[in-house]
Amino acid sequence: MKSFEFYSPTKVIFGKGIENQVGKEIKAWGGTKVMLHFGGKSAKKSGLLDRIERSLQEAGIEYISLGGVVPNPRLSLVREGIELCRKEKVDFLLAVGGGSVIDSAKAIAMALANSAIDVWDIYAGKAQPVACLPVGVVLTIAASGSETSNSSVITNEEGWLKKGFNDNLTRPKFALMNPELTYSLPTYQTAAGIVDIMMHTIERYFCSKKGNELTDRIAEQVLRNTVRYGKICMEDPGNYKARSEIMWSGSISHNHLTGLGGDPDFSGHAIEHELGGMFDVTHGAGLAAVWCWWARYVVKNDINRFAQYAINVWDCVLDPIDPEITAMEGIKKTEEFFTSLDMPINLSQLGVGKLTDAQIEEMANKCCNFGKRVVGTLKPLKAEDIKKIYHMANN
Amino acid sequence: MKSFEFYSPTKVIFGKGIENQVGKEIKAWGGTKVMLHFGGKSAKKSGLLDRIERSLQEAGIEYISLGGVVPNPRLSLVREGIELCRKEKVDFLLAVGGGSVIDSAKAIAMALANSAIDVWDIYAGKAQPVACLPVGVVLTIAASGSETSNSSVITNEEGWLKKGFNDNLTRPKFALMNPELTYSLPTYQTAAGIVDIMMHTIERYFCSKKGNELTDRIAEQVLRNTVRYGKICMEDPGNYKARSEIMWSGSISHNHLTGLGGDPDFSGHAIEHELGGMFDVTHGAGLAAVWCWWARYVVKNDINRFAQYAINVWDCVLDPIDPEITAMEGIKKTEEFFTSLDMPINLSQLGVGKLTDAQIEEMANKCCNFGKRVVGTLKPLKAEDIKKIYHMANN
Repeated sequence: MKSFEFYSPTKVIFGKGIENQVGKEIKAWGGTKVMLHFGGKSAKKSGLLDRIERSLQEAGIEYISLGGVVPNPRLSLVREGIELCRKEKVDFLLAVGGGSVIDSAKAIAMALANSAIDVWDIYAGKAQPVACLPVGVVLTIAASGSETSNSSVITNEEGWLKKGFNDNLTRPKFALMNPELTYSLPTYQTAAGIVDIMMHTIERYFCSKKGNELTDRIAEQVLRNTVRYGKICMEDPGNYKARSEIMWSGSISHNHLTGLGGDPDFSGHAIEHELGGMFDVTHGAGLAAVWCWWARYVVKNDINRFAQYAINVWDCVLDPIDPEITAMEGIKKTEEFFTSLDMPINLSQLGVGKLTDAQIEEMANKCCNFGKRVVGTLKPLKAEDIKKIYHMANN
Repeated sequence: MKSFEFYSPTKVIFGKGIENQVGKEIKAWGGTKVMLHFGGKSAKKSGLLDRIERSLQEAGIEYISLGGVVPNPRLSLVREGIELCRKEKVDFLLAVGGGSVIDSAKAIAMALANSAIDVWDIYAGKAQPVACLPVGVVLTIAASGSETSNSSVITNEEGWLKKGFNDNLTRPKFALMNPELTYSLPTYQTAAGIVDIMMHTIERYFCSKKGNELTDRIAEQVLRNTVRYGKICMEDPGNYKARSEIMWSGSISHNHLTGLGGDPDFSGHAIEHELGGMFDVTHGAGLAAVWCWWARYVVKNDINRFAQYAINVWDCVLDPIDPEITAMEGIKKTEEFFTSLDMPINLSQLGVGKLTDAQIEEMANKCCNFGKRVVGTLKPLKAEDIKKIYHMANN
């Protein structure tokens, strides 16, 4: 094991009906005035919001509500939330939803605790917050891992810039996880979530700092488990066992346990973020559309590791004469799995149409912050590399 | 995944030389007056205590010292520590050592924060603490997992009672883990640590609430990793990679990640605790001497699970006609591994001599708290059962 820091203080409470404890939990963390943050109408329609409000009332906790969070959560709603919370003197943010809602809540929570900073400056890398209001989560989508992670991603509609920020300050205090709440997810969202979960581990697994055996073995099992139970979720959406395995895999996959000692690559996420920002695609679908092309572009930089992935995750058999054959088999298996989920494996399947050279040029440059950064660790990529990957995916 | 709660807030900082950050870390957690708690002379002789004191001085933190913690840490020293800390107005406990030192520090920390309670009443189950002073750890032994766990075990010399107490209050704030600090451990202690690490996962793996697939897969990999790198630590004590894998396995094995959703059995620990209390044996060695007899006694209650253990941890091949053969093979493989570590696999090898029937009677009764509790979950054991297991191990 190489040097690392592991800090995952979020208290996870997992099981059927667990959302009904939310009032008690917020009280235990000292919250007195809550903003209930959520997405569309499904949380209302399903009765989930009613149950949560009842739990808050029973615990004697005041609350206000702000819905309307959309995938690729918008800066404008974050700003609206900040203003509302300031006015109402909110001291606890409760996110009821998936990654977008949680990320939006994290952004609001940071802004509230750092009043001298403009919230977008945090995401643009121009300001560093020193505190964060407490955030709690009732999770309804297994995908982002944001319920235990230190990360959040916000999209600025001015210029459609999608930017992430990572800091331990933003790790939620608690995550209440009831797998039943994911039964009603649309098939497409379930599938995109499965891809996202896999990518949080895969993009840690492929890196330059190797020799972290326990990390690798746990990562491989998280991936195998996600493939195994992901399939069952697709066929049988109301299967508690499968939904629960996927839900817990989603958290483990992004609380950094599957990356300890390594220097995560995350090129796939960086390449996808530009698609998300420009075309507002579903994050998991965008990842599926680009990852295998990234993998083919970099595979020669670490054939042994790609072969290990193929063997330990996909049960491929090592070709001892030419391990590259095994390595490529692992990439192919991944792609076939995505296809089996009806996820796209290129940009045209993603539905963004054929990109023009000018669009690719713009996205590659944005991705590398106009020459100011290289992307990834397994093979550090410049704009030229990223352009080639977009072209490969643009087939 | 069945219902569970997972809360492991300890910040782990892992790597070479990391103990030199201890002053900075304590400051970040608000400590101003520290009690440095440790065991024997090795920490002094190796220069470790000097480095830690320097780090505290550089951070401007006052400190006092209390050494002398022994394996199966004693209540009398805990009481001495409490008195000293009260007098000196200590607000942070720093444990420099392994499980015994950490457990002793946890006991002191609880007593200091609950002045109306006698510390032994906590362990005797007669009082519930509501707070705990912060505890930090510089780990020097990979074994107990106490550096991230919620548990501590104290031995009361009056009656040689060894009692454990589990509460999230006692989870350390941070654990600084430098694998190099374990290079100089005596072989016997390294081996006992490897057994202890394995047992924290094995005793969670064998339980009655099953169907936690991700938990099981992670548990199996922690065990495989511990076997693989445990062997290397024995042959090559200065092997950084092996020591680091074992050190991290030790924490993962007892922060409850390998038991989520289950109802841990922990019969082996309960059976060993009586040996520890009565004969002051090394914890890991005591576990090695009794576990395989427990396993043989209960194997018929869950042949499939023991067979799964044999297959996934020890690469045994399933006998589809008679899975019990495979199940027994896994127990045998475990025993052979303990023997390869020069660990005892029965009570005479443990060095406690042949136990008399009266001794066994007394220990079995104590273990079941004189009929007030049954032990374990896979097969709940009464005193009669435990007597039989002691007799089997007494061969």
